[in-house]
Amino acid sequence: MTIWQLPSMLLVVISSVSPHPHHLFEYDELSQYVDSHQEEYVQTLRDWVAVESDSSDVLRRPDCHRMMDMTAEKLQAMGGKVELVDIGVQELPDGKTVALPKVVTAQFGSDPNKQTVCVYGHVDVQPAKLEDGWATEPYNLTDINGHLYGRGASDNKAPVLAWIHTVEAYQPSFVITIFFPLLLSTPCPLPMQDLPETGSNGLDAMIVAQKDTFFSDVDYIIISDCGWLSRRPALTYGTRGNCYFFAEVEGPKQDLHSGVYGGTVIEPMTDLIGILDTLISPSGKILIPGIREAVAPLSDEEWKMYQDIEFDIESFKSKIGVSQLMYSNKVDLLAHRWRYPTVTIHGIEGAFSGPGSKTVIPAKVIAKFSIRQVPNMDPAVVKKQVTDYLYSVFAKRKSPNKLKVTMIIGAKPWLADTKHPLYEAGKAAVKRVFDVEPDLIREGGTIPIAKTFEDVTGKSIIMMPIGGFDDGLHSQNEKMSRYNYIEGTKLFIAYLHEVAHLKKD
Amino acid sequence: MTIWQLPSMLLVVISSVSPHPHHLFEYDELSQYVDSHQEEYVQTLRDWVAVESDSSDVLRRPDCHRMMDMTAEKLQAMGGKVELVDIGVQELPDGKTVALPKVVTAQFGSDPNKQTVCVYGHVDVQPAKLEDGWATEPYNLTDINGHLYGRGASDNKAPVLAWIHTVEAYQPSFVITIFFPLLLSTPCPLPMQDLPETGSNGLDAMIVAQKDTFFSDVDYIIISDCGWLSRRPALTYGTRGNCYFFAEVEGPKQDLHSGVYGGTVIEPMTDLIGILDTLISPSGKILIPGIREAVAPLSDEEWKMYQDIEFDIESFKSKIGVSQLMYSNKVDLLAHRWRYPTVTIHGIEGAFSGPGSKTVIPAKVIAKFSIRQVPNMDPAVVKKQVTDYLYSVFAKRKSPNKLKVTMIIGAKPWLADTKHPLYEAGKAAVKRVFDVEPDLIREGGTIPIAKTFEDVTGKSIIMMPIGGFDDGLHSQNEKMSRYNYIEGTKLFIAYLHEVAHLKKD
Repeated sequence: MTIWQLPSMLLVVISSVSPHPHHLFEYDELSQYVDSHQEEYVQTLRDWVAVESDSSDVLRRPDCHRMMDMTAEKLQAMGGKVELVDIGVQELPDGKTVALPKVVTAQFGSDPNKQTVCVYGHVDVQPAKLEDGWATEPYNLTDINGHLYGRGASDNKAPVLAWIHTVEAYQPSFVITIFFPLLLSTPCPLPMQDLPETGSNGLDAMIVAQKDTFFSDVDYIIISDCGWLSRRPALTYGTRGNCYFFAEVEGPKQDLHSGVYGGTVIEPMTDLIGILDTLISPSGKILIPGIREAVAPLSDEEWKMYQDIEFDIESFKSKIGVSQLMYSNKVDLLAHRWRYPTVTIHGIEGAFSGPGSKTVIPAKVIAKFSIRQVPNMDPAVVKKQVTDYLYSVFAKRKSPNKLKVTMIIGAKPWLADTKHPLYEAGKAAVKRVFDVEPDLIREGGTIPIAKTFEDVTGKSIIMMPIGGFDDGLHSQNEKMSRYNYIEGTKLFIAYLHEVAHLKKD
Repeated sequence: MTIWQLPSMLLVVISSVSPHPHHLFEYDELSQYVDSHQEEYVQTLRDWVAVESDSSDVLRRPDCHRMMDMTAEKLQAMGGKVELVDIGVQELPDGKTVALPKVVTAQFGSDPNKQTVCVYGHVDVQPAKLEDGWATEPYNLTDINGHLYGRGASDNKAPVLAWIHTVEAYQPSFVITIFFPLLLSTPCPLPMQDLPETGSNGLDAMIVAQKDTFFSDVDYIIISDCGWLSRRPALTYGTRGNCYFFAEVEGPKQDLHSGVYGGTVIEPMTDLIGILDTLISPSGKILIPGIREAVAPLSDEEWKMYQDIEFDIESFKSKIGVSQLMYSNKVDLLAHRWRYPTVTIHGIEGAFSGPGSKTVIPAKVIAKFSIRQVPNMDPAVVKKQVTDYLYSVFAKRKSPNKLKVTMIIGAKPWLADTKHPLYEAGKAAVKRVFDVEPDLIREGGTIPIAKTFEDVTGKSIIMMPIGGFDDGLHSQNEKMSRYNYIEGTKLFIAYLHEVAHLKKD
């Protein structure tokens, strides 16, 4: 299986909910409205999943354009002020360019005196083929025991639709008046392989450009492009950043035959393996000086939060198919997944990577590895720590080959304050819909647009997932449970009500 | 640049030269005959190079068949008893099969009382494209200052033609009567990537099958599928063998996202890098216990032989483009190239190997590495040494991942006695044509068919190269010098005369 990095997120900025007294908010009525429309919601999701909007495949670009058009039409039909914003072109390896899918923005109402939220999401998907190991046709949404299987169902089409249904549910004008400025944007439509988690793509530029126009009234940003950790609903308050490195060792001017030249040259691959082996200990300890020292210490309060999280280690192990994890207790495991840095060696470019055998001495090899960033690490400092360390390790080998270390991505982590009113509102909404306290969780991956929004708009962000823990994002047999889709829509309805009652700054 | 393993060699079994008194052998007359035909020889080479008989490319298979047909026709026109021997099919990765090019055998005369030699060579070639960095069209033989540039010119079409010219030169019946049983065979037409140096292919089976028929009268085997070390002519008396290993580390049941899972699993790539780093020291010392101990000690006599070889370290360095070699003196360098084992790590399958970046934790990674074999190493013992060592190193890591080490090729080295009459005859022929003593050299690469011939027929083998040291085999801008081609033909003529006078066993 190939994993693509999440190219992005779908962002929806939402709201301008008139603050009406709580007792006039008829949640039950809205909830029944959602229940009575659920077949229609599933059908819309089926229509959307049927569009193979795989942004990693340039040949599917017309499907991506069609997906954005469908999204825009739907929002327009609902009375939104919709725009398709051009964010430029994508350069292909052969030097040709292809248009990036336009960003869809939609605004429902406008009133600077009311709370205005922006919801972000995406409607492009990861690649999927039946022969990859899907039990059903990936682009034909299939309901099996209440699970809706299809590529993009959970990542991120159903959450986007849940927000759209929320707008629709409020529109028939129940007990409260609503105005939603709604933004649907397609994110960076490129897979990690081409344009990684830097977030430095057309979308970033668009956010900066529209800072004082489209985004001017936005008070909060909501991202629903993640998932729960277990069957318990969750609010996500942090993501790790990522520093991605290339370490290139160059020797002879061309590849050499290992029979003819083996024994005469210091092989670049031997050097590269040697320095890579100094990054991590067998037990996963990062050996680069300074990295571990920069990590914010785990507070007692935080420890307690981890302790309270619902998480079953055994089912996690069986899900990924390993007999033993890096840590055997919940707190250590979750902490190292979310709030400690990790080093992963992804692979080596330039060496022989095909099946079978080949007797080559590769002349130039480039290792790809990355270090997930957490508070209080600083990518600029990490860059120096890693390069200084590798150069010094390499120097000890006294190799005539040339080492070049470069950091090609330096994405910062994002961390929210779980005591912020946005999160308090989230807890209240979860409590109303699911009658439980949400897990407060983090995401081990990187969602660079969160940081971009925060930095550009200066506004607070909440990540509010509705996807299940076992939805199989980026994997075969992705699904969205009907339960999560429908109850998730109700959660968004309840959440907007709570947000509307926050004190306006 | 991609290097393909020499798929093979062309083998020519030659001779039944009537032993006539030396003084009746008019070398000068034959030499003039060759000189006067050199334009014709170059034209034939041009015709042969024009056939893109790239055996690594299945789409070029018709060209390979045509090349064998052309070869057969030429030998038939010369009066040889020619056969095209079917050696079966090649299985492609998709399960389909494609016919292997037939082996051409040719016999010129037959007389068990006379010396009969078998010459082996090949007429398939490595891949070549103008855009790889060729200065001329690779399949259009181009004469620049006496160098004939073209794919396959040196490897191995000109040497094969030189043997054919040798037969032709003798045929007009000069002072000696000749009978040549001549065999032209295409070797394993598969690149290393598919069917490596095991030699276990259709050709091996054919040699075994025809042991008591075609090969029954053969006294000696001559291979001219190698090159000189410098401008001085050379005889080759040894090749290294090769043990090729796969080391597979398997962890999770599928690739994982490094953000989402990094920090929770012991990554197979970290384990693999860790064990690979224990194979070789930074200075190239093999760390696997027992390997170095098995190597035959360098005798004083051998040391002296190396000392006498003409070899310029500086031009070798500039040829491969490195500032420093593994050893700075000639004897150490040549000895480690030819008569000491080396470990090369070729690459890793299953990890990310493309350009750009990808945030994957590969679930299963397979390192490919090989150890060149020299006397007195035994592939079966090496297999045990390597696997025992890697399993013990891996066990110390206490990883939950699974390691599997397999040896997929175990080709033995080949070593001839330079005091053998075949070599004495070679020295005399070189002396006659070039008026110098030949360098006695080895080949760092592996020519498994040499060992097959030796093992199956029990006959002695000599490797007699005529290609230049800078012919660029397997590389861009391959060439054969006109000088080497023409004087090489004369060398073969002189050599057959010498062989004819060896004492018949």
